[in-house]
Parts: sequence; structure tokens; C-alpha cells
Amino acid sequence: MTETLGYCEELRPEACGFVLFGATGDLAARKIIPALFGLCEKKLAPSNFYILLAARTPLDRPALETRLWEILAGAGLAPAPAAFAAFLGRLEYLRADYASPSFFSALSARLAALDAARGIKNKRLFYLATPPEAFGPITASLKDRGLIADPADCSCWSRLIIEKPYGSSLENALALDAGLKDSPAEKQVYRIDHFTGKETVQNVLALRAANRVFDATWNREFVDHVQITALEELGVEGRAAFFEKTGLARDMMSHLLQLAAITAMDLPDTFRDADFRTEKRKFFESIRPLYKDEALGRAVRGQYAGYRSEPGVAPGSAAETFLAFRFFVDNDRWRGVPFYVRAGKKAGPKKTSIDIVYRKPERGVFSRMDIGWPNVFSFAIQPGAAVTFSLIGKHPGPRLCFAPGSMTLEYRGEPGAAAPSDYERLLLEAMAGDQTLFLSSFETRFLWEFLSPLLAAWAGKPGDCPLHPYADGTPGPAAAAELIKKDGRSWL
Amino acid sequence: MTETLGYCEELRPEACGFVLFGATGDLAARKIIPALFGLCEKKLAPSNFYILLAARTPLDRPALETRLWEILAGAGLAPAPAAFAAFLGRLEYLRADYASPSFFSALSARLAALDAARGIKNKRLFYLATPPEAFGPITASLKDRGLIADPADCSCWSRLIIEKPYGSSLENALALDAGLKDSPAEKQVYRIDHFTGKETVQNVLALRAANRVFDATWNREFVDHVQITALEELGVEGRAAFFEKTGLARDMMSHLLQLAAITAMDLPDTFRDADFRTEKRKFFESIRPLYKDEALGRAVRGQYAGYRSEPGVAPGSAAETFLAFRFFVDNDRWRGVPFYVRAGKKAGPKKTSIDIVYRKPERGVFSRMDIGWPNVFSFAIQPGAAVTFSLIGKHPGPRLCFAPGSMTLEYRGEPGAAAPSDYERLLLEAMAGDQTLFLSSFETRFLWEFLSPLLAAWAGKPGDCPLHPYADGTPGPAAAAELIKKDGRSWL
Repeated sequence: MTETLGYCEELRPEACGFVLFGATGDLAARKIIPALFGLCEKKLAPSNFYILLAARTPLDRPALETRLWEILAGAGLAPAPAAFAAFLGRLEYLRADYASPSFFSALSARLAALDAARGIKNKRLFYLATPPEAFGPITASLKDRGLIADPADCSCWSRLIIEKPYGSSLENALALDAGLKDSPAEKQVYRIDHFTGKETVQNVLALRAANRVFDATWNREFVDHVQITALEELGVEGRAAFFEKTGLARDMMSHLLQLAAITAMDLPDTFRDADFRTEKRKFFESIRPLYKDEALGRAVRGQYAGYRSEPGVAPGSAAETFLAFRFFVDNDRWRGVPFYVRAGKKAGPKKTSIDIVYRKPERGVFSRMDIGWPNVFSFAIQPGAAVTFSLIGKHPGPRLCFAPGSMTLEYRGEPGAAAPSDYERLLLEAMAGDQTLFLSSFETRFLWEFLSPLLAAWAGKPGDCPLHPYADGTPGPAAAAELIKKDGRSWL
Repeated sequence: MTETLGYCEELRPEACGFVLFGATGDLAARKIIPALFGLCEKKLAPSNFYILLAARTPLDRPALETRLWEILAGAGLAPAPAAFAAFLGRLEYLRADYASPSFFSALSARLAALDAARGIKNKRLFYLATPPEAFGPITASLKDRGLIADPADCSCWSRLIIEKPYGSSLENALALDAGLKDSPAEKQVYRIDHFTGKETVQNVLALRAANRVFDATWNREFVDHVQITALEELGVEGRAAFFEKTGLARDMMSHLLQLAAITAMDLPDTFRDADFRTEKRKFFESIRPLYKDEALGRAVRGQYAGYRSEPGVAPGSAAETFLAFRFFVDNDRWRGVPFYVRAGKKAGPKKTSIDIVYRKPERGVFSRMDIGWPNVFSFAIQPGAAVTFSLIGKHPGPRLCFAPGSMTLEYRGEPGAAAPSDYERLLLEAMAGDQTLFLSSFETRFLWEFLSPLLAAWAGKPGDCPLHPYADGTPGPAAAAELIKKDGRSWL
């Protein structure tokens, strides 16, 4: 038996339906459909559960089944025939025309029929895997048809799942969010940032909550600085059209801020999602805006040398593929502790991690030596998940020698069930009605408020914030190294 | 290359001689001679180095060589012929009669001859592996012959190495120590407690010094309590005569107090032995004497059931083979943090360890659950050396489950040279003139001052402090479990 201790929460969502708009799109194929299959195969989804795929593409049943097989095989799942058949048995397809009232009538009728056939009482998730421009119109049409039940009405529920990009600027993000907030209630909207669903990120929260000595030392008294890293080996890989419009900062800032929040927010006294959001909001509100000190001028943007030769990229493109910056959190816990953030494409081996760098000895023999940063609590998120604490110990042997060592987290007992993927976890949480891992309306606004001065600076005189080129496969331009070196530190 | 960092101290003692009194005794055979061989074989001893063995037993050269071979083979060293020959080449034997002035004349002449033959200038260690009654007379005779050079006299030096038992009561320990202190200077006396020479114990100091987050959390704000454990699987094993006189408390208390000091003393700002002793003394002076609270009444003594059937044990023997007690350290760092100590023979699997038990979460979900002690920093000393930090993390898998895990210290780079044994390390330190790991005169006095009220209580009415029997192979009597359970804690 695997030993589990004290607290074990199993998400067992009740019987419900899942509607996927944009079902033939890229996000659906790469993430959502494989996650839905995974949840069914692992029996994490409710046993009474249906999926209605909707998209503009006309697809007959054989074409649909072929397509789904290809999607799952492409995701490396290679389903067993029985599991695939069971998945198909839960699944229907409806051709969509989001501009047409008759589509929403047909949708309403189909959902009623599916509910009736399975004895499910109007409990539905709508995943809007469409361009963000469609969020407002689809939501309005769903509401017109009475498909967004008011949660106070009855025991039924309807939830909307959406995903970034939530707009491309503060203004249109606010407009987009207003459109969402007016129709469904905030508690019906599940905004995905899939970084929050990753196993290591979950573990950061778990380790902080369960082990007092960790959370009680994650503060200015013990921590010198924090590094958040999201470097990718790949370039834009055929997503140039999206990336040319978006750039690295808009694409990644939500992820980076979420990692920072989960690391550094005060933990609530309960695991309730509302309490969690309250504390997370306090954390974001404590982040010093970039325009308030020299941070804005020190933020570094870069572009990998080969970017302009990628298919679909403009010859003189100014889209950044790398970003490095520093920020401060002006609260009692973190005042004066810099957070250094790096993200980039074609920036060396893939590495997503959170690193808590502890302060050096301030007295004794070691305070007078250059021993680097002996203690780093590292949470590796990608490519492999790992939790490691580095230290300096006595090197075994006759001499009094000090050598770097590390302690890596291992669990006693049998290995647990395979961890779900980030999307599996998030869909499961949405089915169960837990918003802890999802972004609030406040957070989407904060994201853009935080980003705006940076984007404005970059849109200004090019000389002020130059776009630094960097060699493909290197971790950003020299200016990024300079950014942290000015503070007497270096990237890990 | 093994990576070593910042600070590396290599002990390279200068050319010297080593005189071992009591060379045919048990301690010499089990510990000292194997350690001397080990130091020579590992080339840690000076290349110009001789050993003069002295004992009452008449031994010709062939008998000596046979005996040494048996000793080394018995210690599991099985020396290669060349290494054994080299060892013999450094070594001579002198029959001793400690009561006879002519023996000391002969000793003096032999040392002068050995020095002259090797070009060594009167730099000598005298290891008194004799019963403690002989310490005073031997020291006096050495002084009479001018063999204890005054360190201010010349570039020569003489050092005395002695080992517990340093007497059997406060009174005779003080008398013994006075005899030592009057003749040689304190800085010439090396009092061994071999626990201080163990690799893990060294590492406790190294980890505290080099990693601020450890030392800065080893205090009342973070630590709930400390456990010090020295349980042995074996019984008295033919040492009944010694044990009947001594008992467990006298035999082990020095070790237990040294482990406590190395764990909990404030660290000096330097690695100088004098500074180290100063801080260690402050620690001992902060220990609340056992008679000052109810601790004395709660100290538990035990005797394993089979003890009185051991050969050489009196039928109604009151010698204790187990001891458990609690003490407090009344300083700013540790005020209110109990130290629980256990030591015993035939008390289950061998386990010598120091465990720092961190406080539990005081707020949040986990403060309302029984999660045991999630965070224990464990320093396993025997049988295997290991440094482990236990914690509770998220169990990998779809559910939010918490499971106990641990982080174990590993070093990067190649493994170092084999760690020296405790005695090898201590002899090397004595040759190099570093007293850090040796006990001061103050410490031997403190040991007896601390022990005396316990011994007095046990010598009083038997009903007050009963001698609890315990089954062979179990970790002490039920009263020991009760001792810590009263405080809402338990032995690890």
C-alpha cells in the first residue's frame, strides 16, 4: 500500500456533459482531446459523461473517428481498441456555425437529447477553444438559448472554460472579460493557465502547506532572490503567424506570473478556491509595477538570430522571442528580494523551473569566502519534474573539504498512479467545480496592467529598449546576463 | 576531478614519534593499532614517523609481528604484505614497567635513538591506553625524565592522548584531571571521545557552517525537539567486568553530550580549536542541571533481561544497560526545546543518530490534522552514515494526496577518498596539534557534574528510581516510552 497521510482529496466529479467548441483546431488536437481521452481511460472522468465536439468543419462519423485516432496516436497515446471504442461511445459531433442562431438551437436540442438519454440534469462544461474574438458572441448566444444556467436557479450548472490569449492589450482584454463577466457569473468562468496544472507546481503548494520549515523560511529573512525560468529549445515551429502578432511577452507572461504567485503568495488557511484567490490577489497587488523603478529600462527583450528566416516571419520583424526582467514584491514577506524572470524560445535546452536562492552565511568562515549560492531549492517543472535542495557539505574523506551536494525528493512507498497531464488535471478540476487552479477576472486584468508599460516602452523609440539578437540555442542575449550581474548575481 | 569548494584543509602533520602505552591491551588492539596502520597505509601519517609500542607483556620481535598481523586481520584490514612490512619498519616494541624509573630511562634513551636515527626533533605523542589509575603516575614519570617538553621551550612538542573513562565519579575525575593539568599544559592534553571523529558528526558541523538556512533554523523558533540516540544491538560482550563497575550512564554520557554539543552549540566565527572550545563551553554551561527540575525523577534506567545471566555479571547486579532522559538548554537559541536522549545495550538494531525535529505547521489545513512530525533532519552516524530530511509532499498522481517523502544528501562529482575511521581522524588531528575534536578539562569536569545527581539518585532508595527490566533486543523499558509520551511526543 502506498502510504498517504492526513489529507487526501479525490476529485470525483458528478455526471456531466462536455461541449468543445473549436474541436477541429490546434489546441483541441494537441491538448484537450488527448486530455479528455486520458481522463476517460484513467477512469477519472465521471462514469456517466458525454462529450459533444463542435466545429465549423463538416465531418461524418467515419471521418471523425479517423481524425480522433490520428489525434490520439499523434499525442503518443496509441489507445487500445477497447479504450478507443469506449471513448467513441461517449462522443458526438455537431457541425458549428457560431454566427447562426439555428446552430445554437440545434446545440440546445442535442444537449437536451444527450442529457435525457443519460439521465444527466443539465450540468455542462463549454470549452471555448476558439479564437478569443469568438468568446463574446458564443457566450451571448449560449445565454440567449438559456444554456448558461444561473447557478442559483436549480441543481444544474454550466461552466465556461477559456484559455489565453485573453486579448492582446489591456483595453481589449478588459472588453473581452467584461463580455464574459456580464453573462456568466465569475464562478462559472474557468480561465486556464496550464502551468498551474503541472505536477511540480502542485507540489510547490503541497510542500509549502505541509512543511512549516519551508514556508517559514521563504521570506526576506532567509531568501536572497528567486529565479523563474521558462526557456524552450524549440523556436516558433510553424506558429509564426500567431507569434508575429503576439510575441514572447504576451505569450508567456501569464505563466511566469502564475509560477511567481504559487511560489511567493501567502498561503490561505484552507484549500477553498475562494480563499486561495484572495491570497493570490493580495500577492499580485503587492508586485511593484515595472514603471515604478528602473526595472522597465532594465527589462531585456531578444530575438533569436534565425527567427526572421522562419517561414511566415516578416523580414524586419520586431517580435521578441526572449524576455528577461526583474521585479519586486512590496510586502512584509518579500520586501527587497528580487525576482528574476527569464523566458525564451530557441534558448538552449528546455528548462522550466522555480529556484529559491537562500542567503549565504553572514558570519563564520564561509562568510569570508566565495562559495557561490550554496542553498538553492529547485523545482524543476519541465522537461523532468524534480525537487532538489543544493547545499555544501563535508566531502567524505580524511580532509576537511567542502563540496557541493544536493538532496533530491523521493517518496516512500509504492509509486502513485501516473500523474495526470496538466490539461487532464485542469479539466478534472473544472468538472468538479474547483477554481483554485484557474485565473480570476482580476488576474487577467492584472496581467495586462503589468505588461502594458513594458509593451508601451517597446513600442516607443527603438533605441530605448533595443531588441537584442541572440544566437540560436543560447539562453538569451548578453544584456540578459548583464541584467542580473549588475546586482552581483547570476542566472542559475 | 572531485569538485571541492572554497575551503579545503589538509592535515599534513610534521615528522614525529608515537608512543603507545598499554600496547597489548584491548583498546590498542581494537582501535589504536588498526588506526595507526590505516594512517600509514593511506599516507595520511607523516612520511617520517615512528611508533614505539610499550606494554608489560614480554614480546620478542617474531611474537610482536605475529600479534600485529592478528590484530590487523581481526580488524578486517588484511594488509598487503608490502604495506604490512612498511608498517613494521616504522615500529618498535619496549617492555614496560610503569612503576620502575629504569623503564622511563630506557624509554627516554630509546626515543632519543629513534629521533636521532630519523632526524626527528623531539616531537612526540604519548597515548596512555592504560587503566586511568596509571595516567597520573605515567605522566609524572614522563615529566621527571623531561619527556613532557614545555611547549615554550623549543620547537619540539609532546602531547598526551587519553581516553575515557576519565574516572568513575566527580571526585576522582577531578583528582585525575588535576594530576594531568599540573604536569602538561592543557594544550598538551588530547582527551578522546571517539564520537567526535565520526564522519557524520563532522558533517553536522560542516552543514551548519556552510549553509545558513540550516544553522539559522536550528533554534526554538523552528525546532520542536531534538533526539539523540545511541542504541546498540550487542550486549556487554565479554566486557562484563568493566561494565559491572561502570554502567551505561558513565560509559556513554560523554558521547551523548558531545553529540548534543556539536548539534546545538553556537558555531564560532573561525575553525580555530580555541574558539571552538569557547563556544562549546558556553553550550555546556547553558544546560540546565538535571536536579533543577523534574528531569532527574523522569530519567529512566533499565537493564536488559538477559544481563544478569552474562558471564561475569553479579546475580543481583544493579548496573544499568539503558538510559533515557530529557534535558533543556537555557539559552536564547534553545530555551524551551527539549533534548531527548536514549542509549542502551541489547536495545534493538544498532542506531546512533541525531534527529532535529522541526515544528509542525501552526496554521493552514495541516495545523488541524494529525500528521506526525513531517520534518526531521536526521543524521545517521551508525551503522551507516547518512543525512536525510523528511517531509510531506504531494503524492504523484491525480489526487491531491499527501505522502511522506525524504531528501537524502548526495555529493556531486567523484566519490572522495575513503573516509578515515574515527580513530584515524583523531590521531591525525592530535599529530597536527588541532584540539577541536578533543575534550577540554572543563568538559571532563562538566561531564561528572552533570552525571553526579543522576548517579546519586540511583544510589538512593531503589523505589525512587527503579531499574526497569526490558526484553533483550527492544529499545528499553516501557518507562522510556512514557518519558517522552508525557510531553506528547514519541521516540523516532
